[in-house]
Parts: sequence; C-alpha cells; structure tokens
Amino acid sequence: MPNSGKQIGTHNVKIGLADMLKGGVIMDVATVNHAKIAEEAGAVSVMALEKIPADVRASGGVARTAPIENIETIMKSVSIPVMAKVRIGHYMEARVIEQYEKLGIDFIDESEVLTPVDIKYHINKLDYKVPFVCGARNLGEALRRMDEGAAMIRTKGEPGTGDVKHAVEHIRIIREQIAELVGMYEMGEFYRNEKRLDFHDELLTKAREYQVPYELVLYVAKNKELPVPNFAAGGIATPQDAALMMYLGADGIFVGSGIFKAENPDILAKKIVEATTNFDRYDLIRDAACDFGEPMSGTTDISEEKSMQIRSK
Amino acid sequence: MPNSGKQIGTHNVKIGLADMLKGGVIMDVATVNHAKIAEEAGAVSVMALEKIPADVRASGGVARTAPIENIETIMKSVSIPVMAKVRIGHYMEARVIEQYEKLGIDFIDESEVLTPVDIKYHINKLDYKVPFVCGARNLGEALRRMDEGAAMIRTKGEPGTGDVKHAVEHIRIIREQIAELVGMYEMGEFYRNEKRLDFHDELLTKAREYQVPYELVLYVAKNKELPVPNFAAGGIATPQDAALMMYLGADGIFVGSGIFKAENPDILAKKIVEATTNFDRYDLIRDAACDFGEPMSGTTDISEEKSMQIRSK
Repeated sequence: MPNSGKQIGTHNVKIGLADMLKGGVIMDVATVNHAKIAEEAGAVSVMALEKIPADVRASGGVARTAPIENIETIMKSVSIPVMAKVRIGHYMEARVIEQYEKLGIDFIDESEVLTPVDIKYHINKLDYKVPFVCGARNLGEALRRMDEGAAMIRTKGEPGTGDVKHAVEHIRIIREQIAELVGMYEMGEFYRNEKRLDFHDELLTKAREYQVPYELVLYVAKNKELPVPNFAAGGIATPQDAALMMYLGADGIFVGSGIFKAENPDILAKKIVEATTNFDRYDLIRDAACDFGEPMSGTTDISEEKSMQIRSK
Repeated sequence: MPNSGKQIGTHNVKIGLADMLKGGVIMDVATVNHAKIAEEAGAVSVMALEKIPADVRASGGVARTAPIENIETIMKSVSIPVMAKVRIGHYMEARVIEQYEKLGIDFIDESEVLTPVDIKYHINKLDYKVPFVCGARNLGEALRRMDEGAAMIRTKGEPGTGDVKHAVEHIRIIREQIAELVGMYEMGEFYRNEKRLDFHDELLTKAREYQVPYELVLYVAKNKELPVPNFAAGGIATPQDAALMMYLGADGIFVGSGIFKAENPDILAKKIVEATTNFDRYDLIRDAACDFGEPMSGTTDISEEKSMQIRSK
C-alpha cells in the first residue's frame, strides 16, 4: 500500500494481520466476563476498554485508554487476539500498549470513543510495530488514516447509541466516493483508447481534496476497494444490523454496547456472529434474528456536543 | 435509446443522423457569404441564424428564429446539411422549420442563444420528424433533453463570448458526472459478485436527482457515454480551443462568432476544421494555429443577466 511514510514492508505485514480478521466480529469488552462471552460466541478478536462505549457516553468525563492491568487480565483470559483503544494523538498511550506486543496485543484502535488529546495530529502509525485500526466517516478520512499507517479502517458510526444509521451513512459515503474514483479511472481508460484525456488530472485533484498521495487514490480507483480491510462499527445492535453492514460492503463488524447493553449478551453475541458470517443466507439470518430477548434500547438523540464521530477529520 | 416518450424506432434514426456529424465542425452562419465560407472550409453542417451569437448579445431585444426566407436562401446556397435555431419551448417555430425537411433542414437547435418563450417546458422533440440538438451544462440537463427526444447534445458554454472557459467547465462536469454513474455501476458489479448490494438503488436515486428514467441513467453507467453524440459549443475561438474540446471528450464542435468575429473568417474556419479533425496530432494543430491573423477579441465579463447558459434547466 502506498503512503507518505514509505515503511512499506512492515506495513504490508500489518495489513495481512487485518486481512485475517475479515468476515468476523470484533467485540468491545470491559471485563473478563465480557471477554469470555465474546470468545465463546466466536468473536475473532476482543477490544479491551475501561467501559463499553454506551457507558463512556453515560459517565462523561475524560475517557482514557483502559487500565493496563485490566488489559493484561483480559489478554490472559482469552486465546483470541486482543485489541486496545488509545486516545487520538496519544503517542504514549500507544507506546505503552505496544509493550504488550509479545503478550498478544494485536491491534491498537486510535479511537474517537476516547477523548482526543490532539485536535490536529493523529499518531504516526507507521512508526509502531503494532498495527492500528482507525475510524472514518468518509473516504478522505479513511485515506488520511491509511496514509498515517492504519492497517484497518472502520466506520465511525455513532458509538454506544445502538443506532446503526450513522454507520450505514458512513459505509455508503465511502462506497460512493470509491465509486467516484473508479468511474474517473474507467472513463480515463476509455478515453485514453481514443487518444483523449485520461484520468490523471481528475485523480490528482481528488488526491489534493483528500490530502493524500496520488498513488493511494490511484490504488483505490484501480482496485475498487481500500488497500486495507474496511470494517463497520458504531451502533450495530442486532443480527440484522450486522448482516446489513456486510451487505453494504463491510469486511467485518465491531460490536460492543449492542451486545452488552442487551438483555442476553451471551445469546445475542453468538447470533450476531452467525448473521455476520452468513450475511448472504437470509434463512440463517432469520434464525439468528430470533430468541435473543431485548436488544439494547439505544438512543437516536445525539447532540453535536456528544457526537463522537465528529471528533477528528 | 431509452426515454419517457417511447418513440424508439424513429428516434434511433435521428441519432444515426447525428452520428454522421461526429468529428466535424458545425458553423453558425447568418448570411450566404458565411455559409459559403463554412462549406469551403469543410464544415459538416451550418446553423442558420438571423445574427451570430456575438451580435445577438450586442444587439439585445428578443432573439427569434431566423427569417424563413433567409434560411431558404442559405439552404439553396450550400450542399451540406443545414440546421436552424428555434426558441426554447417554441413548438411553432419548430413546426415551421420542420416544413423544410424535404428541402434539407437536417437539425433544429432548441437554443438558449435565442430568447426562451417557455420558462418551464422544452419542446417534446419526439413528436417531430426532424432531429433536435439541445444545450446542456451538466449531465442532468443533457439527460432531460434526451428524454424529451434530443438526438444530439452540445455544451452550452457561453455563446458569443469567444471565451471557451464555460464550454470546458460543462464538458468536464458532464464527464465527471458520467464517471460517477460508471463508478456506481462498476462497484455494483464488483460487489454483486460477492453477493452484496449491487448498483440499483444508487442509480435509481441518481435518476430521480436527474429527473429522468432509470434506464437512461443505466445506459450511461454501462456504456461510459451518452446515448447521443455530445458536441462542444459556446466560446470556441481558436484552433487550439477546438482541439481542446475534442481532447476533453467532445464528439465535434460548434463555432460561430469565433470565426465570423475574427480578422480572417475564411482562413480561421479552415484551421478550426483542421485542428478538430486532427486533435490528436499536435504537429498538425501547430500548423492550424498559425497565420490566421487576429482571433475574435471576445469578452470574459458576462453578468448573470446576460448569461445565456442559465436560461434553461
């Protein structure tokens, strides 16, 4: 994958790690009990937090990376890969987490769910051994995060709300914006055969709009997808939500509050995994959609002040 | 070509007539002398007007279709196809012109250069034997005109100014908007192979935005071009202008004031034809770009009130 930092070799290894999670569900967990439910349900990874996003939202205050001893305890309690969140721009929360690389910290999420520490800069993720995942609302954000070294992208959605509308919006926008680049490339090839203007100036101008290298934009235009896996996150609360996001093009799913704020987290966790895996089998989604009790109640009423998705660009 | 009026057979014949003009130059003419210069220069057709657009602009007042006797005289003076302009929405100017079909009126231009008579409706062009050409600033306008039966589209540009900037803008926008549809289609095909959402809802929503049938949008998305020839018009004044428009994807060129407001219309007319025909041969454009004297002076200062391109939607 092309980027401005040129740490290509290691970076491709990190993307390979992200690729291995494709098609799976990654679950936010705040306790060993959560982590065991996730592993039992078939999650491909767990994300260790101090609080799940709905509780971050409810409790207010500064949300920081999880206590290191909690992350250690969770890592020891499960055999699947463990991720941890750090604040946007917090190089040192990330450096501390990176120390646990050998113990099995597989990904760091530079996440808007926590309180950002840097309103201008994201972490230079190429400079770490651990791969990073970052949120994006649109293609420009996704490409900028990749250019900084993110090995996985996820939609931001609106975390902790149980309202999947925002995640749908984000994956739709990313898809439309990829399509725009693809169309420029295809039209350019079409015209080039007629000895007319090709795609270069249009893609270059898009690269400037997105503030990323031309090569990154060209990659997307040629390949019809991001150079890293693109997961869905933020507000997924039911098996149908999970299957919808896959249908819209997500490579996998993050769920947290949607499971642990529901009536029966252990049952629902399994069902969300089933629906994600079988998103193209409507009979199996039907089975997954039954008998899990009450889903998360959720909220549709998020003021700009409380919106997490707008916390970075 | 799909449209809302369903007069498909005859309509395809009209588009065939338009196809025969591809790669050529169509010149606005107000006199027999103009017409002879155009024919001598190798124009594929002439457009009979009372005044060339720069004079329409300068003289003010209501601009109407050319006097019928002038059109007749021009038709008798040349052997190439003759077009005539009618006012937007003026069914009866068009019906009168249509009477000359057998004498050789080959196209009607429902043109924003004349004073529109109907601020809401364009002529139902499917209901005429003569094919129509219409102007467009963007893909939506182009598709709406085609849906009404236009067999050829041209950029609006800003006629009679000698400033090609607007025509460049219009062909660029149309190209970008075609690319957008192409990308949606290609992405949809890509995802359909993965059993994910295809292109239908995106193209349908675009069809609604453009206020045209889905099939018309789908045609463009699949074929990477309009179902009718797309010429460039409005402000072309030099051989390089003409070649630029071809390079950007135009199927041919309309020129009027650019020739007849120049120092040597007879020389420049030939050179614009040469540059249009050989737009991919920079050595030949170089030759065409020499020794024609002063080009049209032109103007870059068009107030909204005097803008012709905004006269219809």
